[in-house]
Amino acid sequence: VITEIAELTIDPEASEAFESAVAEARELFLQAPDCHSFRIDRVVETPGTYLLLVGWTSVEAHMERFRSSDAFQRWRALVSPFFIAPPAVRHTETVL
Amino acid sequence: VITEIAELTIDPEASEAFESAVAEARELFLQAPDCHSFRIDRVVETPGTYLLLVGWTSVEAHMERFRSSDAFQRWRALVSPFFIAPPAVRHTETVL
Repeated sequence: VITEIAELTIDPEASEAFESAVAEARELFLQAPDCHSFRIDRVVETPGTYLLLVGWTSVEAHMERFRSSDAFQRWRALVSPFFIAPPAVRHTETVL
Repeated sequence: VITEIAELTIDPEASEAFESAVAEARELFLQAPDCHSFRIDRVVETPGTYLLLVGWTSVEAHMERFRSSDAFQRWRALVSPFFIAPPAVRHTETVL
């Protein structure tokens, strides 16, 4: 299992509206065939910075299959208006 | 619940020895009274970069109580020889 860890930066003033948009978009991930889990955290030290943690079967499942799906377009349509910096996306695999 | 997310940077050549040291150190966290969970991931895109994800009851539980404990000194003694950059530590709280 691979975890996508994306750092999302928004205007802190828009936090409440952004969190509502993410709640609306959550199912787009959870209904994707290769998605195992969805979580979003706010960074305590930096208001307006969020970490999205999404479990996928593989990097390709996320970067190729999900990114070319309608669900990804709908996710981006819901949340990208809030972004004040490009999302920074990495993938991890759990060691322990 | 708060998650400590620490970015650790080591020489990729030392990955195996570093992962063994982390396995040895894991109980130092899990036995700490305020620690809920311990996980370490390697970043796929950047060999030598790891993300440590530790669940704590609060930021203070981590930064004050754990950091002033013997367990923290023992953790640092085991893993800091591998660091080639200072760890970058943040805390998050889960939104969804």
